Parts: sequence; C-alpha cells; structure tokens
Amino acid sequence: MKGNVIVGQSGGPTAAINSSLAGVYRTAIDRGAKKVYGMLHGIEGLMEEQYIDLSKHITCDLDVELLKRTPAAYLGSCRYKLPDIHKDMSVYEKIFKILDKLNIEALIYIGGNDSMDTIKKLSDYAILTGSPIRFVGCPKTIDNDLALTDHTPGFGSAAKYIGTSVKEIIRDSQCLIYPKGLVSIVEIMGRNAGWLTGASALAKGEDCDGPDMIYLPEITFDIVKFRDKVKKLMETKSSVVVCVSEGIRTQDGKYVCELGNASDYVDAFGHKQMGGTASFLANYIAGEMKCKTRAIELSTLQRAGSHLASRVDILEAYQVGGAAVKAADEGDTGKMVVLVRHSDDPYQCGTEVKDVHKIANDEKIVPREWINKEGTYVTDEFITYVRPLIQGDVSPIMVDGIPRHLYHPKHKK
Amino acid sequence: MKGNVIVGQSGGPTAAINSSLAGVYRTAIDRGAKKVYGMLHGIEGLMEEQYIDLSKHITCDLDVELLKRTPAAYLGSCRYKLPDIHKDMSVYEKIFKILDKLNIEALIYIGGNDSMDTIKKLSDYAILTGSPIRFVGCPKTIDNDLALTDHTPGFGSAAKYIGTSVKEIIRDSQCLIYPKGLVSIVEIMGRNAGWLTGASALAKGEDCDGPDMIYLPEITFDIVKFRDKVKKLMETKSSVVVCVSEGIRTQDGKYVCELGNASDYVDAFGHKQMGGTASFLANYIAGEMKCKTRAIELSTLQRAGSHLASRVDILEAYQVGGAAVKAADEGDTGKMVVLVRHSDDPYQCGTEVKDVHKIANDEKIVPREWINKEGTYVTDEFITYVRPLIQGDVSPIMVDGIPRHLYHPKHKK
Repeated sequence: MKGNVIVGQSGGPTAAINSSLAGVYRTAIDRGAKKVYGMLHGIEGLMEEQYIDLSKHITCDLDVELLKRTPAAYLGSCRYKLPDIHKDMSVYEKIFKILDKLNIEALIYIGGNDSMDTIKKLSDYAILTGSPIRFVGCPKTIDNDLALTDHTPGFGSAAKYIGTSVKEIIRDSQCLIYPKGLVSIVEIMGRNAGWLTGASALAKGEDCDGPDMIYLPEITFDIVKFRDKVKKLMETKSSVVVCVSEGIRTQDGKYVCELGNASDYVDAFGHKQMGGTASFLANYIAGEMKCKTRAIELSTLQRAGSHLASRVDILEAYQVGGAAVKAADEGDTGKMVVLVRHSDDPYQCGTEVKDVHKIANDEKIVPREWINKEGTYVTDEFITYVRPLIQGDVSPIMVDGIPRHLYHPKHKK
Repeated sequence: MKGNVIVGQSGGPTAAINSSLAGVYRTAIDRGAKKVYGMLHGIEGLMEEQYIDLSKHITCDLDVELLKRTPAAYLGSCRYKLPDIHKDMSVYEKIFKILDKLNIEALIYIGGNDSMDTIKKLSDYAILTGSPIRFVGCPKTIDNDLALTDHTPGFGSAAKYIGTSVKEIIRDSQCLIYPKGLVSIVEIMGRNAGWLTGASALAKGEDCDGPDMIYLPEITFDIVKFRDKVKKLMETKSSVVVCVSEGIRTQDGKYVCELGNASDYVDAFGHKQMGGTASFLANYIAGEMKCKTRAIELSTLQRAGSHLASRVDILEAYQVGGAAVKAADEGDTGKMVVLVRHSDDPYQCGTEVKDVHKIANDEKIVPREWINKEGTYVTDEFITYVRPLIQGDVSPIMVDGIPRHLYHPKHKK
C-alpha cells in the first residue's frame, strides 16, 4: 500500500469486533500503509473529524493481544445511515474531503447490515466521482443474521457465552426444590433471528440435559400451548428451564414483551417502558401455576462477555479484518469479506469477497428445518452448524484478578 | 477415622460449594473413613433417607477436579431449619437413627447461618443423649455475611464474576453515544450486606474508570439525591454506570424494588411480583431525565458462574472442607471452620475452628468506614480486603467448547 488506511466500527458491540480491528491494523502495517487511522464512533465521528492515529494506541504486540480480548467497539460505534447519494451530495463531499486530506487509500468498515449499506454508498460515490479510494466491509454481529456469509464474527463468542451460562443456570436451578417447583425463563437477544437463542442448546451434553424448551422468533408463540407444556414438564421435573428469544411474537404479531406493562414511568420517547419477555412469562406462569418462577435476562453481557470468547471466533474476526485490507490493497471496492465453510468436521472455513450490492439488507433467519416440528427446540443440524464456532478459548490476560483490556481512547462527549 | 462420614449442602448455590465437598470427600478417605455419604438436599433429604455413596460418583482424580469446577450444590440443597430440641424431639430421634444405621462418625454440613444452626442443634442433641457422632460446619455463602470468619468460600468467585462483568458492561455502554446519554443500572445480590455490590469496584483499574456510583444496602437510599448525582455526571459523561444492591431501602425502610409494580400478575403467594431494583431505577431515571436507560440484573449467574471462579476461593473452599473433617476426626463437635487472615500482602490465610454457638445468626455487614462519606462508593480499604480473594483462575475443563461439570446424581422429585 502506498497511502493510508482508515477503519471504523459500527452497530452493536460484540466480543470479537476489536479482533477484526487488530487484523485490519496489523495487515495494513504489514502491507506498507504509512498510517492507520481509526474513526471514533464510526462514520458519524469521521464527519466531525473525530479520528485517532492507531499506532499511537497500539504500540506493541501485547497491545494487539489486549485489543483482541477487549469487548465492545474500541473506537466507539454509531448507528448512522448515510443518505441516498442523489438526495444529499454534501455529506459525501464532506467525507471525501476528509479522506483526501488524510491521504486515505482504503476505508474498512466493521459492522452489520447498516454498515454494508455505508460501504455500498461510499464505493458508489467514489466510482461516480472517479475517486481512487477503495471501500471494503467486514461482517460483524452477534445476531448472525447477515446474508451471503456462512456466519458472522461475534456470533461464536456470544453462542459460547450463552451455552455456558445456560448450563450454569440449569445447575443452579436444580439445587433447591420448591414445593410446587421452579420455572426459570432465560431471555436471549435476537429480535428476528433465533441464532443466539438456539445456541442455548449447546448446554446439552452428557453432564446436562440442556434447556427444556427453546422458543425462537421464527416461530409464532402460542402462550397457552407454552403453559400446557410447562405444566406437563412439571409433572416429572422439579426445575424447568425455558430459553426464549426477546423477539418472540404471538399470532397477532405482538411482541410477548408488549403484553405486560413494567411500570408507570414513561421512557424518553414518551411511551411506557416494557418489561422484558422473560419477566412477562415468569409472572404469567407464576400466576397460572402458583409456582416459583425466575426471569433471567442475559442482557448486554452476552455480547460483551469477552472473558469467555471463542478462539475460532476471535481468530476468524482477525482473519476477516486482514482479508478486508488485502482485498482493498488488491483493488477491490464495494465488497464485503465473507466466511465460506468448506466442512463441518473437521471444521474448515476460509474467506472470500462478495459484492456488497448483493447483500441488500436481507436478514438471515434460522431455516425452518433446523427447528423441530413443534417449534420448541432446535435440531441436531443446528448444533452441527454452531458447534465448530464455539471451539477453543482465548485466555484473558489477567491483572490483579480481572481481565485487562486495551486502554480506551478518550472520546469527546 | 474408624466409621463413616456424611456430608450435606444447604442454602443458596455458589461456585465454590462443591470444592468444599471435594475437600470433605478426599480428606475423609485419606483419614481412613470407610464410606463417605452425601445427603441429597441436605438434612431435609436425609430425613427421607435420601443419600448417596459418594465413592460411586467420584470415581477418579479427574472427577475431583470436575467437582471443584461444578457450580451450585452437587448434592442438592435445602432451606430446612430444625425445630428447637425441647419442642420436637422426634425429628432428632429420626435423624440419629439414620446416622446410627449408616455408622456415621462425623457429619459435615456446608452452608451459611442456617446451616450452622443445624450443626449447633445436632451437636447439642448428641451431647444431651451421649451420642459419639461429631458435627462440624463449613462456611459457605456468596454474601460474605457470616460472622467470625474473615470471609466465606463462594464470595471470592462471585466477586470476581461481578468485577469482570461490570467492567465488560462499562465497555459495552461506552460504545454507542445516545443523544441524551445512557444510564445503566446494574443490580447485584445481597439483601442486607453490600459485600458483593461493593465488589463491582474491582472493575476499576488503569484501563477502566469503574462504576460511577455504588449503592450498598448498609446506607439509606435517597432517590432524589441519586437522581441529582446522575444528572451531574451526565453533564460530562455520555455513559453512566451505577451498581446497586437488590436490598437498597429508602428512609422509611421500604425496598426500592417495592416502589414499582412489575405487572398485574400475582405470584404463588397471592401478591404482586415486584420488578427489580435496577428496573425500577432505570424507569425512574428515564422518566426524570428523558434519556436512554438500561437495567441489568446479574441474577443467578453471579453465584453460579464457575467458569470464572477465583483460584484462591476454590482452593480455600477445598481446604475448609478438609479442615472440617480433620477437626471432627480429632474430636471436635459443634464447631465451624473459619478462615483467619494473617496478612493482605502477601495474602496469607489459614483455618481455625470456632464454637458454632458463638455465631448466633449475626449478619456481618460492610463496616461504615469502608463506604465513602456520601454513601456512594467503597473505599480503598474495602478493595484491599477483597482483592486477594479474586486472585488466580481455575481453568474450566472444556469439552466441545463448553465447560464440563461432574455428572449430576439423580434426584427424586
């Protein structure tokens, strides 16, 4: 490379997104980039000329290792969507002026569907105006809902965290026997795609029966059938653990979490804040069955739990970052790096580049045939798909008993 | 030892309680016990003659290592309190008949305050009736609220989990910048004692500012002052993270979680189920400040997160189990093993035995001088006390990407 590289992060945090950043940084330096800049808070920050020189923050090999182990977007993130080119040219003029000033040869954007839309528009604009800058996207999302790629970096680590935590919850809930039993409802992220919720089945093994039921957002949720299944299970078990996606919906299309009202307080947008799906179902079952219930939200921990990251995931994230720089250096633009699986066992997976115009905001959901007929569990095919992605560990670098992260660059408010 | 040993577990689950069980088992075998029985679901199960021969379940050294890494009570737990001896002799007659039948020489009970009450009553009854059986207690509770002992096994691992998770939450919450900022409220266990909530301060280090405020149940909670402090912080920060104990109470003695109503459903006992403390405060701040808020309950994961156990904690738990057997073998009864700290740095800690009659259900709370004047953080003395207890790791034994536990004995419903 002859010029400089700039990299940004966008969308929700993951445990692996900084490993992609490390991969971008290292590969860019290795291929001769003079400087590698990092946008602070993505394209939105770049427009305000908020960026850092990454070599000032990643000063040695240990920093690279720390960065791989640091959860959530190191550079900060944003949810900004660029306007259509023909609607507002000025935004693009501004961005390209900054990129030219920084002598940028390649822009790498790590993110999900929205970020790929950014890559698409910027590369279109470059072609339109004859700019030589190249734009390549790196997939990232715990939700695993990106089309074209076998899976997304970030998903494997979240799946490993979920499988492990659900297994620990199952043990915990078997301990004490309540007179009328205990029903635990575990709420897992994923509004429209059930990849993460399905990963709770990873808890199942020789030493654990796994969750009793798993409800994905791909299947319409029937609350009466659900209650009857819980009742049936409680006839033979003292503890029932059910994993549900935050996005499960009833026949009429309503989110289950919308069925209850959490409190009288209204949120910033003036409407009542909803209780969670788990909390609603736990209250419902307690009311219906007069038994002890528990609602457990895995919350943001499932996406930022880098202390339990998957080695496969962290290495692939790094690899994808490197492949994006390589592609840009070799002249690709308007592309996204994708992961292509060659086999499940032994697990073999490589990278390719695909045209970002083909991604088109499709959400990849769990195929119907990977969910059982009743809609209450995932099949063995699902597990065969996910299992390789959670293999291996990335030992945290512990300082004084707590995992060390790479020091955070100062962000302006 | 000439006879047999029986061991039980009682109270809430922890990540270290099974390491104590492993210590009891190993030491009993080493000292010549013929058989080591495990009561299923504590003294309550024993009364129904529910017990197992532990040597059938712990068959090799690897099983001992797995047991140390298995969260929650392996044998199952109970919350049964024995009646006063003079009020109901028959319960004691029943228990001692079973113990005699099993040729028990020593009974070891691993648990918190209630369990020590069990040890006290059983040893009193033995003395009263001339039974030679000896009774020794092993401290256990994540809450760290047992008197006489420097700290309790289980606390260190929970503290490590909390420090690590809060650090990850802080990173996660800094990622995206919301127009009016983001306030995250993290709810941590501990109804009356703030040891665990205070442990959130462990997140603080060179690479992390730590939580912005920490509210312990030892200090009366003033919701208006809290709101004003959050407002003040939001003037300079885009993300504020506050850790609160589930047990914080307002001036009039009401739990904060009682201030809101989660839903219209009533629980098994006919009263409305409460929303959590974090969820109430998140809704309150959203209403008052019109900003984005998030409620995160660390829930049961903080007590069962054995994948992130502290090595010091797991080893001490094992040691305490062994010390209990040794004490009983040497003739002690009506005693509890305690941990005695000799120095903070280098950390040195040994075991002693104390008279269980002196424990008397005292709850050890955080000393006022270990909380700052304003009541919004813990002091350096608190950290000096907790820090040694979270040192070192116990690598999970991974099978197919997920931590392996020791197979669970079949419990009857």
